[in-house]
Amino acid sequence: MKATVLQGVGDIRLVEVSDPALRDPTDALVRVRLAAVCGSDLWPYRGLESFAPGDRMGHEWIGTVEEIGSEVVGLRKGDLVVAPFAFADGTCSACRDEVPTSCRRGGFWGGANDGGQAEAVRVPFADATLVPIQADVDDDLARRLLPLTDVMATGHHATVLAGVVRGGTVVVIGDGAVGLCAVLAARRAGAERIISVGRHPDRAQLARRFGATDTFHADDPETVALIVESTGGGAAAVAECVGAQSALDLALAVARPGGTIGSVGVPNGVTGVDLYRFFRANVGLRAGVAPVRVYLDALVADVLAGRLDPSPVFTAEVVLGDIGDAYRAMDRREAIKVLVRS
Amino acid sequence: MKATVLQGVGDIRLVEVSDPALRDPTDALVRVRLAAVCGSDLWPYRGLESFAPGDRMGHEWIGTVEEIGSEVVGLRKGDLVVAPFAFADGTCSACRDEVPTSCRRGGFWGGANDGGQAEAVRVPFADATLVPIQADVDDDLARRLLPLTDVMATGHHATVLAGVVRGGTVVVIGDGAVGLCAVLAARRAGAERIISVGRHPDRAQLARRFGATDTFHADDPETVALIVESTGGGAAAVAECVGAQSALDLALAVARPGGTIGSVGVPNGVTGVDLYRFFRANVGLRAGVAPVRVYLDALVADVLAGRLDPSPVFTAEVVLGDIGDAYRAMDRREAIKVLVRS
Repeated sequence: MKATVLQGVGDIRLVEVSDPALRDPTDALVRVRLAAVCGSDLWPYRGLESFAPGDRMGHEWIGTVEEIGSEVVGLRKGDLVVAPFAFADGTCSACRDEVPTSCRRGGFWGGANDGGQAEAVRVPFADATLVPIQADVDDDLARRLLPLTDVMATGHHATVLAGVVRGGTVVVIGDGAVGLCAVLAARRAGAERIISVGRHPDRAQLARRFGATDTFHADDPETVALIVESTGGGAAAVAECVGAQSALDLALAVARPGGTIGSVGVPNGVTGVDLYRFFRANVGLRAGVAPVRVYLDALVADVLAGRLDPSPVFTAEVVLGDIGDAYRAMDRREAIKVLVRS
Repeated sequence: MKATVLQGVGDIRLVEVSDPALRDPTDALVRVRLAAVCGSDLWPYRGLESFAPGDRMGHEWIGTVEEIGSEVVGLRKGDLVVAPFAFADGTCSACRDEVPTSCRRGGFWGGANDGGQAEAVRVPFADATLVPIQADVDDDLARRLLPLTDVMATGHHATVLAGVVRGGTVVVIGDGAVGLCAVLAARRAGAERIISVGRHPDRAQLARRFGATDTFHADDPETVALIVESTGGGAAAVAECVGAQSALDLALAVARPGGTIGSVGVPNGVTGVDLYRFFRANVGLRAGVAPVRVYLDALVADVLAGRLDPSPVFTAEVVLGDIGDAYRAMDRREAIKVLVRS
């Protein structure tokens, strides 16, 4: 089959690899229907994160079950399934604690594991990992479900970590797909005031469509003062959806004393956090890779009911054969997020 | 009157200063009865934190009201009052948010403000700051109340930030007065398993008396593995009561995925926190200077009812004239905490 690999910095390729096959009785084999390119895929692509040449790529995907192992009980051939970006056994202490991303037997798609920017994927612990959709899934619905595999669940996680409450105020740092989904998640949670901070006018427009009540430019020297003033001293909840030091600094600057920063961007070079600044103002820092599987049932239900539609984050699409174009468009910020058809 | 000042590194002096006097109508003048030396007083004393020569010292003290300003309504001359280590106006947004340590008009005892290791203190915002004790306060009771001004409330804050729950498990890092008080606070909160990590056998003994179910040595290379194993993957709550990088590293190593570290030691040189390590395991970091005033009413009530006695942290005492001996004993770790009689 064909699968996307990262051969070198900036060198993304679709190559022929061995067809995946069931290995363990708890495996499933899934034919990929739709995949996506994630902002975090760009870190190794740009050489800002280590990788091994030939690493498989893609951790956002949905597909159709093709084969199941002898111990799989909750899935059937033909099921359309949503895959969280991490697989997990569902039984260990971390899984029981609802932190499946810390499952000792689990892992993430890509690298030495199968990736989703491919024709098919072998899924370990298929019962615990995959969520089958009990509905006919047309293309429109498939596009709405795809963001739940990562960016929508990650944006939701930011609001959970930051402690967004009904009627409350949240500042969302970042206007990438995760930041935009955090805005959507904050609206879903009933936040009354949703302040989006980004760098791109087109994304600010989408943020408003998703529920942002205010939008600011991250580089405007007035932004911090305006937010602090208009919130009467800063926001109790700040969703940091970038993962860079500058974003964390901005988050701290707009956080209210006693408030909480929920940080979900994969930290890139954020190794110099000065604890004193958090200590002095009693600002909590809850950083975490989203336990997507924990949130999937509720998010899927909302998408099926028509209450949630994160699909506007896809502003471009390609077929798998043109995967290189998808990375280039994301890298040049010509697209917020690119959908990939297998 | 006489007041303690830090003249240079290791040079603590009792000097003659102008008598304090009422300045604002919301002030009170309080004659100090008992004060204490705090572990954080040692940072500037050792030259590890900046100070101005002549800075007043002492932020832990209780005393008797001598004079009140014309707008003070909740205090009377002769009242025995407990003073949190920070004064605050009680009306600003931070105070209303229960973070009086971030009050813009407030401040901390010492430095350019009056210090508690002295004969008397001018207290701004006396109604909002001081807690009068409605009881006869003999010497024994005074000794039990004194730790509430900082270390007991700070230990309590660590357990609040870490999310200690009834029946739960907590690891307390540090066997200084704050760490020992965190053990006491965890027992008060109903924690079932309280694991104390320190460096001194005598303090481990006091930790057990305060409620620790397990004690470990911080430098034993087996400690982390033993705690992680015996808690089935780490503790959901970790109270970091030191403020050093090594303590934070230890806290992270024994935290359960999805758990929370409550950090209350004044961070000293902790400028290199690697966010990725927290992100990867979804471990929250809530660092904060204790909002002592918020906790005082409940803690005072427990002391008055005989349910709480943190006074064993005082293992030595001096008269104010011998304040230098108090610092030397603390610096050499000959005493856990030294009480000072004015």
